[in-house]
This record gives sequence, C-alpha cells and structure tokens, in this order.
Amino acid sequence: MSDIRVLTGPEVAQHASKDDCWIIVHGKVYDVTDFLPEHPGGQAIILKYAGKDATAAYEPIHPPDAITTNLPVEKHLGVVDASTVAKVVKVVTEEEKQRQKYIEARPPLDTIINLHDFENVARKVISEKAWAYYSSASDDEITLRENRMAYQRVWFRPRILRDVTNVDWSTTILGQKSSLPVYISATALGKLGHPEGELCLTRAAQNHGVIQMVATLASCSFDEILDAAKPDQSLFLQLYVNRDREITRKYVQHAEARGVKALFITVDAPQLGRREKDMRMKFVGEEGVAKVQDGQSGIKKDEGVARAISSFIDPSLSWKDIPWFKSITKMPIILKGISTAEDAILAYEAGVQGIVLSNHGGRQLDTARSGLEVLVEVVPALRARGYFPDPNFEIFVDGGVRRASDVLKALALGAKAVGVGRPFLYAFCSYGQEGVEKAIQIFRDEFEMNMRLLGARTIDELVPEMVDASALSSHVVLTPQDNLFHNTYQPLSGAKFQESKL
Amino acid sequence: MSDIRVLTGPEVAQHASKDDCWIIVHGKVYDVTDFLPEHPGGQAIILKYAGKDATAAYEPIHPPDAITTNLPVEKHLGVVDASTVAKVVKVVTEEEKQRQKYIEARPPLDTIINLHDFENVARKVISEKAWAYYSSASDDEITLRENRMAYQRVWFRPRILRDVTNVDWSTTILGQKSSLPVYISATALGKLGHPEGELCLTRAAQNHGVIQMVATLASCSFDEILDAAKPDQSLFLQLYVNRDREITRKYVQHAEARGVKALFITVDAPQLGRREKDMRMKFVGEEGVAKVQDGQSGIKKDEGVARAISSFIDPSLSWKDIPWFKSITKMPIILKGISTAEDAILAYEAGVQGIVLSNHGGRQLDTARSGLEVLVEVVPALRARGYFPDPNFEIFVDGGVRRASDVLKALALGAKAVGVGRPFLYAFCSYGQEGVEKAIQIFRDEFEMNMRLLGARTIDELVPEMVDASALSSHVVLTPQDNLFHNTYQPLSGAKFQESKL
Amino acid sequence: MSDIRVLTGPEVAQHASKDDCWIIVHGKVYDVTDFLPEHPGGQAIILKYAGKDATAAYEPIHPPDAITTNLPVEKHLGVVDASTVAKVVKVVTEEEKQRQKYIEARPPLDTIINLHDFENVARKVISEKAWAYYSSASDDEITLRENRMAYQRVWFRPRILRDVTNVDWSTTILGQKSSLPVYISATALGKLGHPEGELCLTRAAQNHGVIQMVATLASCSFDEILDAAKPDQSLFLQLYVNRDREITRKYVQHAEARGVKALFITVDAPQLGRREKDMRMKFVGEEGVAKVQDGQSGIKKDEGVARAISSFIDPSLSWKDIPWFKSITKMPIILKGISTAEDAILAYEAGVQGIVLSNHGGRQLDTARSGLEVLVEVVPALRARGYFPDPNFEIFVDGGVRRASDVLKALALGAKAVGVGRPFLYAFCSYGQEGVEKAIQIFRDEFEMNMRLLGARTIDELVPEMVDASALSSHVVLTPQDNLFHNTYQPLSGAKFQESKL
Amino acid sequence: MSDIRVLTGPEVAQHASKDDCWIIVHGKVYDVTDFLPEHPGGQAIILKYAGKDATAAYEPIHPPDAITTNLPVEKHLGVVDASTVAKVVKVVTEEEKQRQKYIEARPPLDTIINLHDFENVARKVISEKAWAYYSSASDDEITLRENRMAYQRVWFRPRILRDVTNVDWSTTILGQKSSLPVYISATALGKLGHPEGELCLTRAAQNHGVIQMVATLASCSFDEILDAAKPDQSLFLQLYVNRDREITRKYVQHAEARGVKALFITVDAPQLGRREKDMRMKFVGEEGVAKVQDGQSGIKKDEGVARAISSFIDPSLSWKDIPWFKSITKMPIILKGISTAEDAILAYEAGVQGIVLSNHGGRQLDTARSGLEVLVEVVPALRARGYFPDPNFEIFVDGGVRRASDVLKALALGAKAVGVGRPFLYAFCSYGQEGVEKAIQIFRDEFEMNMRLLGARTIDELVPEMVDASALSSHVVLTPQDNLFHNTYQPLSGAKFQESKL
Repeated sequence: MSDIRVLTGPEVAQHASKDDCWIIVHGKVYDVTDFLPEHPGGQAIILKYAGKDATAAYEPIHPPDAITTNLPVEKHLGVVDASTVAKVVKVVTEEEKQRQKYIEARPPLDTIINLHDFENVARKVISEKAWAYYSSASDDEITLRENRMAYQRVWFRPRILRDVTNVDWSTTILGQKSSLPVYISATALGKLGHPEGELCLTRAAQNHGVIQMVATLASCSFDEILDAAKPDQSLFLQLYVNRDREITRKYVQHAEARGVKALFITVDAPQLGRREKDMRMKFVGEEGVAKVQDGQSGIKKDEGVARAISSFIDPSLSWKDIPWFKSITKMPIILKGISTAEDAILAYEAGVQGIVLSNHGGRQLDTARSGLEVLVEVVPALRARGYFPDPNFEIFVDGGVRRASDVLKALALGAKAVGVGRPFLYAFCSYGQEGVEKAIQIFRDEFEMNMRLLGARTIDELVPEMVDASALSSHVVLTPQDNLFHNTYQPLSGAKFQESKL
Repeated sequence: MSDIRVLTGPEVAQHASKDDCWIIVHGKVYDVTDFLPEHPGGQAIILKYAGKDATAAYEPIHPPDAITTNLPVEKHLGVVDASTVAKVVKVVTEEEKQRQKYIEARPPLDTIINLHDFENVARKVISEKAWAYYSSASDDEITLRENRMAYQRVWFRPRILRDVTNVDWSTTILGQKSSLPVYISATALGKLGHPEGELCLTRAAQNHGVIQMVATLASCSFDEILDAAKPDQSLFLQLYVNRDREITRKYVQHAEARGVKALFITVDAPQLGRREKDMRMKFVGEEGVAKVQDGQSGIKKDEGVARAISSFIDPSLSWKDIPWFKSITKMPIILKGISTAEDAILAYEAGVQGIVLSNHGGRQLDTARSGLEVLVEVVPALRARGYFPDPNFEIFVDGGVRRASDVLKALALGAKAVGVGRPFLYAFCSYGQEGVEKAIQIFRDEFEMNMRLLGARTIDELVPEMVDASALSSHVVLTPQDNLFHNTYQPLSGAKFQESKL
Repeated sequence: MSDIRVLTGPEVAQHASKDDCWIIVHGKVYDVTDFLPEHPGGQAIILKYAGKDATAAYEPIHPPDAITTNLPVEKHLGVVDASTVAKVVKVVTEEEKQRQKYIEARPPLDTIINLHDFENVARKVISEKAWAYYSSASDDEITLRENRMAYQRVWFRPRILRDVTNVDWSTTILGQKSSLPVYISATALGKLGHPEGELCLTRAAQNHGVIQMVATLASCSFDEILDAAKPDQSLFLQLYVNRDREITRKYVQHAEARGVKALFITVDAPQLGRREKDMRMKFVGEEGVAKVQDGQSGIKKDEGVARAISSFIDPSLSWKDIPWFKSITKMPIILKGISTAEDAILAYEAGVQGIVLSNHGGRQLDTARSGLEVLVEVVPALRARGYFPDPNFEIFVDGGVRRASDVLKALALGAKAVGVGRPFLYAFCSYGQEGVEKAIQIFRDEFEMNMRLLGARTIDELVPEMVDASALSSHVVLTPQDNLFHNTYQPLSGAKFQESKL
Repeated sequence: MSDIRVLTGPEVAQHASKDDCWIIVHGKVYDVTDFLPEHPGGQAIILKYAGKDATAAYEPIHPPDAITTNLPVEKHLGVVDASTVAKVVKVVTEEEKQRQKYIEARPPLDTIINLHDFENVARKVISEKAWAYYSSASDDEITLRENRMAYQRVWFRPRILRDVTNVDWSTTILGQKSSLPVYISATALGKLGHPEGELCLTRAAQNHGVIQMVATLASCSFDEILDAAKPDQSLFLQLYVNRDREITRKYVQHAEARGVKALFITVDAPQLGRREKDMRMKFVGEEGVAKVQDGQSGIKKDEGVARAISSFIDPSLSWKDIPWFKSITKMPIILKGISTAEDAILAYEAGVQGIVLSNHGGRQLDTARSGLEVLVEVVPALRARGYFPDPNFEIFVDGGVRRASDVLKALALGAKAVGVGRPFLYAFCSYGQEGVEKAIQIFRDEFEMNMRLLGARTIDELVPEMVDASALSSHVVLTPQDNLFHNTYQPLSGAKFQESKL
C-alpha cells in the first residue's frame, strides 16, 4: 500500500537518546522511544544500541516477529540502506575463542552415554551468559539440587522370574500417544545456546514420537515451531498469563487453532525468582533475560522498570481465573507448579485435566520441596477424596530427572508421565537436534533394561510396591562437624607398593 | 572551678608501673593505678601504655566517656602538653597494608547480592583481631553453625493462584512499627570494625524504618547513639545486668527517659563463653575484648583479674530479680536467651512482655539448640497452657538468619519477628552505613519475592501449614566413614573432550 | 577318521569379510561366518581378526573348548601351517609397561592385612580393561556402594564374661561342610585378571575347606575347574539359563554327574546391566565382555546384534520353569538374586532349597537395596508364615562383605552363610592362588577375634540380639548444602608449632 | 649369698640362637631360651638382640622389674663386664631428627587451650611407633570415632535465671573424693611416649585431687607408681586377669595392701583387637606391643607364638569367676567393658560395685556402640528392675571425651563419672606432668563455664531434662553419592574483590 521509506545510517544515528531512540533490526528501522520503559529486559540494553544496528544482540533472544508484533505499525519507520550503516565490529573475546575450541573438541556423540554428559559438554560450548541463565536457580539453589536428591531417596524392590522378553514403555499423555513416559518440558531462550534453538527439540521429538511442550519464552516464535512440526505431531503449550487477558486469549486460541493438544498454565511464577548466578553475570541488567512471545507483551506503562519482567506475567492470577480459561479453549488445561496436596485438591475441584508437581526447576521459591516428594503427599490426599485414580485427571512431575529409573520411580508412585527440561536443552546446546535424538535413545535403552530388571513389562505393571519411598520425605542436614576432632584423626592407609621398584 | 593542671610527657612517663600508673587519653592524664584490677579487659593491656599516650588503643573499643565515667574525678589529673609527649610511632604491619589494599579493592556495592557477601568482604577489610572477636563462638562452634543449619531443615509448602499483586511485609514489634519483620540485634564493639561503629546502624535504621537494639557493650556510647537517632525512631536496649543494681537502675531509667521502647535483658550470659578463635588471637589477654558502657562498671575489687569480664555481669541474676525490673521501668521487658519450653513458661508467668529464643549467636553454651528449634518446642507448650497466642507476649528468635526466607519460616512457626546481628555488623564493617542500607534493601527484595511465591500477602497470612518443619528437631551426625572402602572406590567420570583439539 | 586339512596363512587371509570369515585359534582354522551374529561379545571384535590369528584375543576370555563346543564340526576346517602365518606383532603399550612395573613392586603378601588391600593392588596390576570390567556396576553405582554401606548401619551388642577360650566358625552350607560361614561367589572372566583364572580359587578353596561357586561365565572351562578340584571338594554351580533349555539341561546334568553339590540359578539378570565404567572403556564393543561356557550358546539367529549378550540368557525365565529344573536334577536348587519378601515367599513355596539375597554385586538394577537390608525384610515375612527357620531352606546374602564382622552381622540376622565374590577375585588378580589363601587366612583371624569379642563361641550362638540393626533400612541422602554459608565459615585451627624452630 | 658371676661380651655373644639365647639388660645377663615362646611380644623381637645388649629396646616398654620377676632366678646368669660389650651404635634416623626438632618447636604450653591440642602436639613429638600404638584402634576404627560422635548427638537444654555465682563440679567416685567428675583411665606403655611414663599422671593427679586408674600394662611398675603417690592419694587398679589365677590373686592383694581403692576388671578383652595402624608399623611383630606388669605373665607353654599376647589374658574369664574375686579382696569391684543392658543387669546381680560402659577406646570390637549410647539403654533397664539409682552401684562411661561439656552430658544421663584416657596420655607425651596439669586446668575452666551456662550449680543438679539425647541411638550412614550429578553441579560463588587493585 504505502511506499517504503529508505533511511540512511547517519540519519538513524541522530536518534540515539532516551527521548528519541531509533534502532535497526534485520535491516529495518524502528522508533522504540515509547517502548523503552516496557521492554521486559530493561531499557539499558536497548539504549546501548540507540541509533545503531541492534540485530546481533536482538537475534539470539527474540523470536523474529517479536519486534513487529509488539511495536505499533506507525513505529515501523522503513528500511535502511545497508551500505550506509557503520559496521558493528565484533571483537572476538578470549572466552569466545576458547569456546570455539571446545566446540571443535566435543566428545564424539557415540561416547555420550548418559544425560549428565550433555550438561558437561554444554557448559563448555555455550557462552558463560547462556550457562548462567540456563543453569541458575533461586537463592542457594537448594531446591534445584533437592530435585535430583529426592530420586536418590527412593529405592527399588525389583521382582524376579517374570517373563520379560517383551517390555513396552510407551504410554499416552493427555490422550496423546507418546513413545516414552516422558515429555520435553518448556525451557526458555533456546537460541542463547544453539542457533536453531527450540527447533532442535521439535524435529527430534517428531522423529521419535515424543511430545514437546512449547515455551511462552522460546527464542523461536510459536509459529516457527509449529511450522517445523509434522501435521500429526503432538505439541503442548506452556503459558505465562499476561496482565492483559486479551493478549492471552488470542495466544491460546491461536495455539488451539494450530493444533496444540494441551495448555499448561504456569502457576508458580507470579514473579520470577532471584537467580544469583545469573545476577552475577550481570545478565539481567545488561542484555535482558526475558523476551516475549509475539503478542504477549501488553505492558502497563505505570509499572516502571524495576521489575520489568513482571510486566507481562500477571501476579494477580488466581483460582477465579480458571473458569475463564475453560471458556476460551477446549484444550485440556493443566496447572503447572503445584506444591501441596491442598492445591492439588483445589485443582481437581476446579475441573482442570491435570497438574504438574513442579518447583520450576528450582528457579522460583528456594527450599520448596521436590515434585517427587509432593507426589507422595498428593496421591493419598486425592485418593482419600475419591479423586484418584481418575482417567480424566493426570498427575505429572518434573525436576531432577536424569535416568529412566527416576521416571519409573515417579510412575510407580502415581505419576502419569514426567517432564524433562534442562537435559534436552543441554543436549541440543551440545549437539543440536542429533543430541536430542541421542538423549531419547539413552532413555529408551535405560527403559528397556530397567523395566526388565524391575519385572515390569508395561507401564501399568509399575506399582507402588516396586519402590521403597519411606525415606522420600526426610530432609537430612548434618550437624556441624567437630572440625578439631576430624582434623586430628588420621585415617587408615592401605598396603604400600614398593617405591624403589616403581 | 579548679584550674586545669598542665603536665608534660616526661612527667607522665615517670608513672609507668603497676603501683603507680598514669596514662594519657585524648590529651588528658589519668591515674589508673587503683583501676587496674577492675579493668574488664585485664590490666596487662593498660600497663602496656603505662606512662604513655594510650589513645590509639583506647579509641576503637571504648565509648569516649568510658574513662571519665568510670574513673573518680580526683583521678583526672589534668591535660598534657602535646608537644612534650613522645609520639607513639605506629608501625604499619604487613597485615595492615594488605588490609588497606582489600579496602581499596572491595567489590562495588551493587555487586553485593546477598548477606553472605558482606561477611566475605568484612573478613578481608577488618583487622584479624576484629574478625576473631566478631566471628568466634564458643568451644567447637557447633551451635554457631547449627543456628544456620536449622533453617535448612525447614521446607516450604507454597500456595498458588492467590492474587499476590500487593504483598506487605511490614509489621509491629512490641507495639512499634517496623518496615521489616526483622530487628537489628545487639552486637558489641562496633568500632573495631568501622570507625563510626554502631552509628552506621542507627542512621541506616532511621532511613528505612527498622528498629535497632542498642548493645550494652557498644563502642559508641549510649547517648551518642541516641543523639544520632531521630526523635520518632524506635530503639530497643540490650542489657547486661550489673552486680551493682544501682548502676543498672540508672542505666535503664536513663534509657527509658531517652525514649527507648523496650528492654531486652540478656539471661544466657552469667559468664562469657570460651571463644577459641578469639583466644588464639590472644585478644582477650592483650587488648581486652570487653569494655563497658558508661556507668556499667561498678566492679567489685575482690574479683581479681582472672575473669575480669564477669565483674560487671552478675552471675547471681535470677527469676527473683524480675519484679525489681518491673518496678524500675515501664518499658516492656523481654528476656533474651531462652532455650527451653520450661523457661518460656516461667517467663510468661513472670509477667514479662516477651522472650528471645536465642543462644547468643553460638557464643555461650556450645551444642545448645538453635532458637528456631526451640521455637517449635515453646509454641505448643505455651499454647497448651493458653499462653499462646497472646497479644501482650511476643516471641522472637535470633541466630543464623541470612535470607528473608529464613525469617518467613520463623514467622510461620510463631515468631513475631527475628533478630539479625552479625550480617548487619558485617555490612557496616564492609561499607559503613551504606552497607547496612543495602542489607535492608536485599531483605526487602527477598521478602517481596518470597511472599509472592509463598502465596502470603501479609505477615498474618504466614501460617504453620506453609512450612514442613518435621525435620527441624533431628540432629544428624554421620557414622564415621569406612575410609578404606571410600578411598578404594573409583568414582565414575564423564565423557571426555578430545584433548588433542584443545 | 578324516585326514586333517593343512592350510596356509595366505589361504586363511582370503576369508576376511563379514560374508566369509575364517579365523585361527590355537593353530586351528575355523569358519565363523554363520556364527558372527551369534557371538555374545558382538561380531565387531571377531571381524577385527578375520583371516588372522585370533588366539591372543581369544585366550583370556574364553575357556579353551568354547570354540570347539560352539561351532559345528563341519566348520572346523583344519590346522594351519604356523610358519606361513603372519605374526601379530604385539606392541607393548606404555600402560602395559607401567602395569608390569606395578606387578614387580607389589606389596609383599605378608603386608596385606585386610581385603581392601587386594583391591588396591589389583587395580594397578591388571589391565585397565579388566579393572573396568570387574569393578564396574550399573548406572551410578549407588547399589554397588550401598552394599558396603548397609553393613555400616548394623552395630554390635557384644556380650562379656563368657568363656571364649575355644571359638568355632565352621558350619555347613546346603549340607556341605565349610571351614568358614562364607562361600566363594561366582565372578566372570577370571583370566582377564590372572593367567590361571578361576583355578586359583579352586586350589585355594581345596586347601582350606572353603566352597567355590563355579560361574557359567568363568574363563576356565567347567571341566578344567572340576579337574583341578579334589574328589571330595565341594563345589556349587552358578547358572545362567539358556533360551535353549536343552543346552541348560545338559550343562546341569553334566555338573551333577561331576559331583557339583548345588545349583544356584541367577534370577536377577534377564538382561545384563548398563555398566558405564565398562562402556567408557569401549570394552563391550571392542573385545566382548561376555563369553560362553561350553554348550551355553544356543543363540537364536533372529536376535540381531544389539543386545547379543542377551542371546544366551533367557529373559523369559519365570516361576513356571522351576518344576522343570526340579525334574532334571537332584541337586539342591537355590535362586540367586531375590530382592523382596514377596519373592522369597514364592521361592519357598516353589520348593527350592534356598535363596541368595543379592543384587548381583550392584551390576544389575541400580538403587536396588542391599541383600543385608532385604534380609531383615525376608526373615520376619517367612517366619510369619512358619517358613523360617526351616533346615531345608537356607538363606544366603552376598554383596559388600569386606570383614568377618560383616559376615557375623548377616548370620546374626538369619543368613546361613555369605557369598564373597570380588574380594577373592582381586586376591588372585594380585597374588594368584596364594592371594586367595591369604584372604581366607584374614577371614579366619578376624572370625576368631570377633567371635571372642562378641561372646559367641559357635555360629549357633550368633543371635539377633547381638546386633542393633535399627538403622539398616534407613536411606539417608543429604539435603543440598548451603554452600555460601559453608564456604564463608572459617573452621577452628589448633595450637601452632613455632615455625622458626622447624 | 652366692657370688655374682661376671661374664664378658664375647661370652654372651656365643649364645645367639633360638635354641640358646642370652641377652643383656641393665648390665645383667639372662638366659631367655625357654622364655622365648612365652614372650607376650613374640620371640622375633628378642632374637634380634640374642647375644647382645637389649637394654635400649627393653627400657621403654617394660617395667624395670619385668625380667627379674618373670624369669626364674636360675636364669639370671650374672653381670657383664660393660667394657667388653660391643656398643650398639644407634643410628639417629631422619625421622628421629625431625622429631627432636618438633620437640623444640612445641607450642608454648599456655597456647594450649583444648584437649585436641595435646593430641596434635603428641603426634609430632613421639615416635611413629608410639603414635601407631596409642592412636590405633581395631579394624576400620569406626568405634574409635563413633565414641566422639556420640557426644555430638546429644544437645543441651540449658536453664536460665538461676543464681550461678558459685558452681561446684567436685564429686565422689566409689567413695573417694575427686575434684573433677572425671578419672584418669588406664592406658598402656606410657614410656613409649615420655621417659617418665605414667608417673606424669600420678604426680599431676596428686596435685589436683584427681584419681588415676593404674594400668596392668603400664610401663612403670606398679610399685614405682604407688611410691610416687602421696599416702592419701586415691588410686584405682585396672586388671587383666591372668590364666594363672594365683598370679592375679597376688597382684590384687598386693594392690589392696598398698592402698588402692578400687579394682576395675577388664571384661572386654579376652583377646586383644586387630589394630591395623599398629600392624602397618610392624610394631607387633618387631618390638612387641605388650609387656607385662610384674607377676602377670604365667604363660602356658602350649600357647605357641601366634597370639602370644593372649597368653597372659585369660579368655575363659566368666561370670563364674566373680565370686572368687569377691573372696580375695575387699576393694570395690567394677567391671570395665560392659556394652549391653543385659550384661549391666547381670553385673548388678553379681554384686559388683559398678560398671564401666566402654568399648576399650575402640580398640577391641569394631562397630560396637559407644559407652554413651549404651548408657541410655542401661539406665532405664536397671531402673525398671529397681536397680537404679543405687548408692552402692555406680555407672561410669569412657571413650571419646574431649570437653567438660561431654562429661556433663554423660552425668545428666546417669553416669557417676567419666573416664578419660588418651587425652591425658597425649598431654604427658607432649609436655610431661605439666601437660597433664594443664589438661586438668582446661577441664576446670570448662566445667565452671558450662555449669554456669547450663544452670547447674552442683553435680546433683545435672538432670536428664538438661539434655536432648533423642538422636543418640541413631546411626546415620549416607547413601552413596550420585557423583555424576555432584561433579556436574557448579556451586555458587560470592562477590569478587577487584583483582586489579590487589
């Protein structure tokens, strides 16, 4: 319709202040002056690029359409003549050089034999900032680690002399077939760790019949992900609820229209947690950890910048909102982030289709209990009211899973399936789509072996008697050590080889 | 009235023995011969300066008026002609040079993100002696550390889907408004760590609506502190009870007259604990850890020097004394240092207004339990007698708090507020008043986040069901390790990067 | 009957592909083309030697008759003219040179004073591959270590003032006299660690009246072992059940005919566990961990190579097979690998003569419980049904034993005897037969001392009251540490020596 | 009567074989041929000095009269002409030179502030052999350490607001006044660690009103010790019962005649434990850990050498012997080494005057429980039968005590007093008699402080309610760690100092 205005670099460079701020992204010029206070990642990071080309900084943490979607059309000023724009000379840091070496030296994929391996590789091959953002959790990261430790407190009671020639670990999750009793849980900002971001997950999931939960804060746009999926591929959606419910309504209904199979509403993040590793990296302040899926940033101007991230997550979300969600979608609704039997009961009574016992990977309230521990509180409480088992209400658990045996423990205790987030994230950070496929393969090998050894031929044969969870709810902290005694004590040593002959 | 006598350095220098000992402080000459055996810090340290200028040693650990108040007026001999006094050449030690470097290199205040940071900074920027005095605790320092560990044994049970747009963590403490459910607990000898000493606390407290408890053993005099406070600023007083009750009476009534709002009587220190870190520093013997607030040192001469410190703390203090305290003041009386339900009941029945469940920061009886653990013993015991809840009887806890989440745990379990001592001390040692303000800001940020994530909008909404304290009373000590086995076992290792490419 | 065909090296070398594969072993030529997919260790390792002399690789992990027994007679092509065969030049690696040095420098045998010593010696004097194979266990090796830890959770309650001049720790096991309440449990592939392999066990057992359990996967052939035994020496047989029951029948009946006294059927290994240390060594893929006792490899061709090892262990083995075993042998039948009271009861009711509470040395299902812990579940469950005690049903335990005191604990809790595997294996890896004899001597010394100190003069006097097993079933995992606090805390130090004088 | 025969070195040197063995001790010649197999320390060590002067080796581990008492008078061959004896040139080893340096550099005694300090000093200033002998315990030394850990599992419940001006920790033990509720427990071979051996204890005990228990295996002879004591000084005797009861009778009656106040019969050592640290030092074989008090070695020749040490400790000692002991002495009889309530009851019913709940400092049966833990089993069991409290039956505890607070815990739980062994031993190894006096002084300081802080003015005021012993009987062993996870996790770090400024 309208002619496209063509601007030059010097013209743009004149608008480089807080009160008059233009930036270039992907060859187009935008006036972001009014948007500055609304930017979820803070205005400082934008101002660093005021009057300049911001593409390189924009790229890894925003979906391509984020800016076009969030900015009113009248702020789209036109295109820039690339030849007139000063090149941003990117200095390759020592850290970056080291990182490139590590990428070259990655262990061959066939030497990766467990999920921990991916994490150790990822730590070296992604930037320190990405590592800080992904690996961090809140406060002292007690809950982050407790999530793993909880599985160590459950022991197997394997049964023998059953014919385990054939074992089958496939299942259904919310009515969708899944080749594993595991789904890929939502993690944010995938492009920070790999240029293809979450698409690595989508493609690997496709090849192996696994279900991916798409994150509101994914680096790839929702439609990019959906476009990469096969028509019959099952996907779930993780939702942060916006203060502006209209934005949320559109987003949810768009997802449903595109065939998403279930809606996981995050209920444990009215405010994002304090993650000190991330804060130490100055990541929050400088480059913005948060970005927004298209259509999710209807930010109130009166919020100020202090807690910008809260601007698109509504802290007022409450039980009163559940009927509204039921009114706008036919997808099953699952509440993600339940931590007590009381809330599990409320969820059931609110008529949702499931709950995820989760503490957000340890990233929200530190010293909250693990999902697995909450599970043994929730199941009897629901059962006592006749709410469990119920084919229309599924219980999921996430956090801390590193082995198929962990999953089997959760399933024996009543979970329908288990969400796995960071391990798949680290898998694609390390090896892209192939890494994710390898992770799925590792799960498959472990399921086969462990189900055989446990004497369970199908998921249904996983019963509570197969585990001893009596230690699960015990939280053991050591009495401070009597250091003087321990330092004084001389440990035993063994027989000595003859040094003269060595 | 009388002419002021002017003395010369050489004249003073003639009085340099145990039997005839003059010293110079702030340009004045005092005859301290008779006072030597009464000096709470021992006479050795005074004799080191016999006949000399003792100002530099006196300054950091005494209130300015300590000597004038404690020494009879006839021992104030006059002024000295400064030009005649031999300069005490202060050798700057290597340690001191290093310390100055650390002060220069302090982390910028905005990189301080938790209370532990202050302690780590303080350790480097204060003298080793100050560090030994502040950080030490009794015997094996088990209780010191247990105080922290107790909080690790309490886990959250957070509630979700409550409208937490607005959260409010302000409260009242003994009828006084407080912007935090935290008060600044008394710590001694603040000038050892920072030249402005406790005034840093007073000024920061003022700016943020926080209540400071003034210590009997503060380096700044009581009146200096009160003078620094604003008229409407709430202050509490911590009291060591003197053997000479008349001294105590005057001190308490003076405090009340100056507007102090509550009297916290220390009841867990009939004798000060053996603190080995401090003993290792030879601090006790050489420079005297104890000093006395104005009017607090009515020392009996027959005490001898062995336990001089006991001389102004009365080991005979008993329940029989409580009515007398009630007779001399209208301030609420709180007993600080209760460790059993039995004594909590006695305190209630004695008609005081509150108790602090405290073990004196681990500095008194080692392997005494933490205040938090005592809390879950005390609350049901009081409740069983109908003594709890009672708006006229408040329960406080102190020791080991490092996070707002700790405070929320104590409050959920029945505490009215929590005392925080060393973290604020370390904050001003590191950064003066600004450090204390930052510490308060950190608390504020953490309260906001944690209350939202816990689903508690006000202090009143913190209920026992929000915590799982079932592990709180368990004291776990490990069975000694089978070292031969553990040293023989070879841990698993992960996939290896290709060394040739690195 | 037929003339023996004589082939030359070049002739053999022409058959060096997957579709036409000859190999030389011990100077004879075999056509293994059809056998490739059946090889328990995978075909890759055979193909490495296609057309070549494979003796050096074959030797340490196969009984001498494995190839002749498994390969149809028409595939035995003839002998090779040794002078025409290209010598396989064995490069002595640095690792191997180091290993030889360690062998030279072994601690003198009389400085070996406990069983851990053997393990530490073995680790240095055997190849890394052997060490990986022997020492590895499944997944995180939690159960491997838990097996040892379980013994640390049982404490003694020793009785005093009993006349313990004479103490006797001999017993009977399944009716056979044993000088120790310990039998040598089956371990596989002994020649990997010592050229004489399992014969070291057989000869030492003979000299000391100890019973050896012969492994299906021994490196020495069954008959070699039996030939090395004395006529009146008691031996047991450990059995992996073959898919082809006829092979199993022959093997069992042959054993019975040769005088074996009991049949221990392994029931916890329908599939061999994932052992990551071993996988890291690429041992499985490259050289084949598994080999097969003569007559044990009736492998189905349709199995493929993925889990070749499963090919000769039948995952369909079930309770239904027990009557068949009873029909083919009069030997007592013992089920090895019971992990629950439920299965112990089923075993008793199936009419077998005993059970081994075992998790396969931690090599199968990780986080399965220790045999000792299962013992205190099993004994009361059997007793409640009147099944215990029963002279015709014996309960054994294995895993984690390193001291005679461990054995005494198991016996006090109801075990008839205890199986010890790796310690005896490491003993012969380190010192051959002499090492095993020394290990037995150490047990003897420890039994004498501990029974005296415990106040038990005979095995019968070991009663449950002599142990406190109340902690046995508790699984304690530490809450993740508050690292900031622990790293900030400065431990106490002791009195210092005067450096200037040192 | 008879002329003393004078021999020459060369003459003696001719008798240097197992079948004809003379040695020189203190200038006298003895024929020890027949005695060789009876030597408690084995014959190897004697044969090393066959035909030579053995004085230097004999001296530190035998009372001076050991040889004259044990060897029949006809084997005392005469004196040797010193000038004819080849000097044994003692090479001063590097270890010995280092040791002498450490002795020079010992921390000044006034910097010793707790009992651990003595142990750390002793370790450096005594020979490695002495250290191995003193510090070692049986098997894995679990019980050795558990003895200390048990005290860490008991917590205080201190009472406040009691008039603690005067506190008194003196008591009576078996009717004897003691300035501390602690006695010096028997330890062996004191001269290994200090030339004056146990006399350091005797003299220090004398000066401070503390009771010493004299060991059967003391390096100083019984009479030397008694001669060093003051007439009114209370001493107890520890007794190993000899197979030849006549020897024991004489020994006991001699002790009674010399005024010993109580007889502690060791009942937990029918055979001495295996102490691996000691074995590693080859100490047992080479120089003989055991020596014998005068008159204690009536060794049966048929014992052989294997367990020579058993030769003078009777493994047949049983309850039947108690009446005999009562018949030969009027001293109170105490059984040392009770570990169960069952045996405590038997002891009471046997009519003895007390028991020591002890595991021999961890040197006998490893994984036996600590005396403190046994105490809370014994007291209720005795009470239930009306046996406790009984003024004529006292309960003692030993093992692991390092602080006065430990003693207070044991007393609150029902012990009459506590035995302390190694700490006093290490005190005299480090500083001779002065060290022991310092140790007593440390106890005194700690008792004063801790009783004040606990609110107990006298020993009688120590009541069970003052401790929380609920964790005492729990034995916690950690589940093996998930090493992959723990090694992967990256701990938080704090704010960083600015490196450029340091």
